[in-house]
Amino acid sequence: MTNLADLRINAERLRADFEELAAIGGTPDGGVTRHALSNEDLEARAWFANKVEDAGLVLRDDAIGNTSGILVMTNSAAAPSFLIGSHLDTTQNSGSYDGAVGICAGLECLRTLKEAGVQLAVNLEVINFTDQEGVWHSMLGSRGLTGRLGDLTAHRDAETIGAFRAALFRTGIIVNDIHEMYQAVRPPEQVAGYLELHIEQGGRLHRTGRKIGVVSGIVGRSTHLITYLGEAGHSGTTAFDMRRDALQGAAAFINEAHTTLREMFPGGIFNCGKIEVEPGAFNTIPSKAAMLCEVRHPDESAVAQMEGYLLGLAGDFAARFRLNWQDKLVQHMPAAEMSWTMMDAIEMACTRLNVPDPMLLTSYAGHDAQIMAEYTPTGMIFIPSVNGISHNPAEFTEWDDVVLGANVLLQTLISVAGGGQNPA
Amino acid sequence: MTNLADLRINAERLRADFEELAAIGGTPDGGVTRHALSNEDLEARAWFANKVEDAGLVLRDDAIGNTSGILVMTNSAAAPSFLIGSHLDTTQNSGSYDGAVGICAGLECLRTLKEAGVQLAVNLEVINFTDQEGVWHSMLGSRGLTGRLGDLTAHRDAETIGAFRAALFRTGIIVNDIHEMYQAVRPPEQVAGYLELHIEQGGRLHRTGRKIGVVSGIVGRSTHLITYLGEAGHSGTTAFDMRRDALQGAAAFINEAHTTLREMFPGGIFNCGKIEVEPGAFNTIPSKAAMLCEVRHPDESAVAQMEGYLLGLAGDFAARFRLNWQDKLVQHMPAAEMSWTMMDAIEMACTRLNVPDPMLLTSYAGHDAQIMAEYTPTGMIFIPSVNGISHNPAEFTEWDDVVLGANVLLQTLISVAGGGQNPA
Repeated sequence: MTNLADLRINAERLRADFEELAAIGGTPDGGVTRHALSNEDLEARAWFANKVEDAGLVLRDDAIGNTSGILVMTNSAAAPSFLIGSHLDTTQNSGSYDGAVGICAGLECLRTLKEAGVQLAVNLEVINFTDQEGVWHSMLGSRGLTGRLGDLTAHRDAETIGAFRAALFRTGIIVNDIHEMYQAVRPPEQVAGYLELHIEQGGRLHRTGRKIGVVSGIVGRSTHLITYLGEAGHSGTTAFDMRRDALQGAAAFINEAHTTLREMFPGGIFNCGKIEVEPGAFNTIPSKAAMLCEVRHPDESAVAQMEGYLLGLAGDFAARFRLNWQDKLVQHMPAAEMSWTMMDAIEMACTRLNVPDPMLLTSYAGHDAQIMAEYTPTGMIFIPSVNGISHNPAEFTEWDDVVLGANVLLQTLISVAGGGQNPA
Repeated sequence: MTNLADLRINAERLRADFEELAAIGGTPDGGVTRHALSNEDLEARAWFANKVEDAGLVLRDDAIGNTSGILVMTNSAAAPSFLIGSHLDTTQNSGSYDGAVGICAGLECLRTLKEAGVQLAVNLEVINFTDQEGVWHSMLGSRGLTGRLGDLTAHRDAETIGAFRAALFRTGIIVNDIHEMYQAVRPPEQVAGYLELHIEQGGRLHRTGRKIGVVSGIVGRSTHLITYLGEAGHSGTTAFDMRRDALQGAAAFINEAHTTLREMFPGGIFNCGKIEVEPGAFNTIPSKAAMLCEVRHPDESAVAQMEGYLLGLAGDFAARFRLNWQDKLVQHMPAAEMSWTMMDAIEMACTRLNVPDPMLLTSYAGHDAQIMAEYTPTGMIFIPSVNGISHNPAEFTEWDDVVLGANVLLQTLISVAGGGQNPA
């Protein structure tokens, strides 16, 4: 008879899964691209569904394309589940750890518990959330499950919605209308809690040599599409005092935003990740520059202050370069706090596994846990990212740390999923 | 019997042509888009060929897709021609005057001379040059005719060359190999001179109330593709001292280049017309920012100084933001001087037409005349652009000024094409 505290996942089986998954959507420089609902994502979903069935778990999906494997601990697969989640999708030419570690480790924990014949108080469900990275809508799957989708058609044109519906259709789930996605919502009493294992994507664990991070909160984030509108003109012949160069103004604004937002909000972050220029010819003064800007801060009220300052700056620079400008709030993700119960359980799991000094930290990346936290007791476990590199083919975590993280997840699950009994 | 000095073009027929042409590739906001060798350009070429044949001129084309109408004044259409040129192609959502005025006026001058039975010493040829605006290669047609194509395959990949060949194929002229374009070259002795009527695209004539500009020279121009290479990373989690943000560096560089190049080179111009960012996600630090930058100056040696300064600045800012960088010279167009003979003839035509005070000026835009000037005696006539607006749907020239420009072109032609005789 195995003492539950001594139960460990199968590290080789976990590694085999991880490597199979990393090959799906693999890029020439060792990264992966699996945009949500792309062919590569569909391939990863099929791979996951096969793994779920091979493990003898109950395969389940919902109206927004979330896919789960359920280890039935009670008398019914329809009884409340404790969710262990992450995502199979990635950004463009990203790393193979982001999201994948959480899915593979969750699956492996359920296999381990099933093999050991452990009986807990609730069903356990490993879940792949649709579109965490936000090709269509950031954290679409967890928003759908928790009833936090908002009006998906509000800021989208008919063409985009049509393409979205068509992409969903390929998952084999949604057939007629984008609004059927709202049927993915689950009553909160059907969910017993949520845990997610993820790479840190920053360098705090790696720099300090710590192995496990216990997430206390997740930063709030707002994304704005700021568009400068000037006037196209022949670049050679338009007099200087007549120029209204949208890209010149945008360059000055981006430059200033980086400098002053960093100074004014030491705990916050500004990023301009994309700029699109029209008409985009070498010999034409740009008439339009559309900038995708985000601010992040662990403190919800500071997010709002940063937004206010950013938009003030945008207006100042538009005026300075005689440009018109528009702002569209693309997305707001409120700052989230993790459950103390879950944090305690993760720390106890660390003690049981002799992990010295787990580090309490804030996540500067968004995660499905951020959405889940408003809905059910939620916890997150971080493992180190070497040099803090992420969203990049060079993203890397030592394999021993992945295994340790999976075991911390397993032991946390055993304590929070309640009523653990040794197998007979 | 009409005195040749009293001969005038048919303003109504010119206007009808101009309006028909403006409708080809017309955009919803009153502009036009006729990229070289696009469907719209092909439609404009077919329209032009029909007009040439309707006028009883000899239709001719060459291996690079230049299309001409020849008014045979000698015993053969193969005898030397005096060329009157411009272009039917436009930039994206451009104005309807740029290029079109020169083509329509050239055609109208030949019709007027033919109807009047005027006999000159050389054939007259109105020519549409392929791709003046440079979708494929700036001033492709005039480079081909004068033997200044260079190695077209040097900086292009096989895919681009294939697409280029396919686009040329649609003109019905080039069939097998891009190198057949080099057969478009004409021996200089086959060309008696070149004249081009064009809108100014700047505001000097309009501001001063002058009606005709006599171009003395055309600015030199160099276009560089400057690429900053940083490192992609999660925008929320990458530590500040680890960030190598290509767009942040690019914004700072563009901002500085505008300011200091303007201060240091008062007669010169800098434009950054396009920037492309990778991977281009709101939550990823940009790893690549490719900027299309051009410098212009009427003095050829100052163009080189501006290039040197620009690239020095690019290196400084790359270092400041810990980026790698690359430079590619996309194109160099040397500064060109117009022929004194042609300038004199334009001024005499102005006197004959009672145009007060024609303005001697430099062109800050590139024209096929820039290529032709090294090859044959070349002149350019400018007419006012209202508020100097160009490459924009709001580009506008008063119709009376178009008619005046066409008559100055006619009278200049009569004096430079030599041996004018009154009709019997």
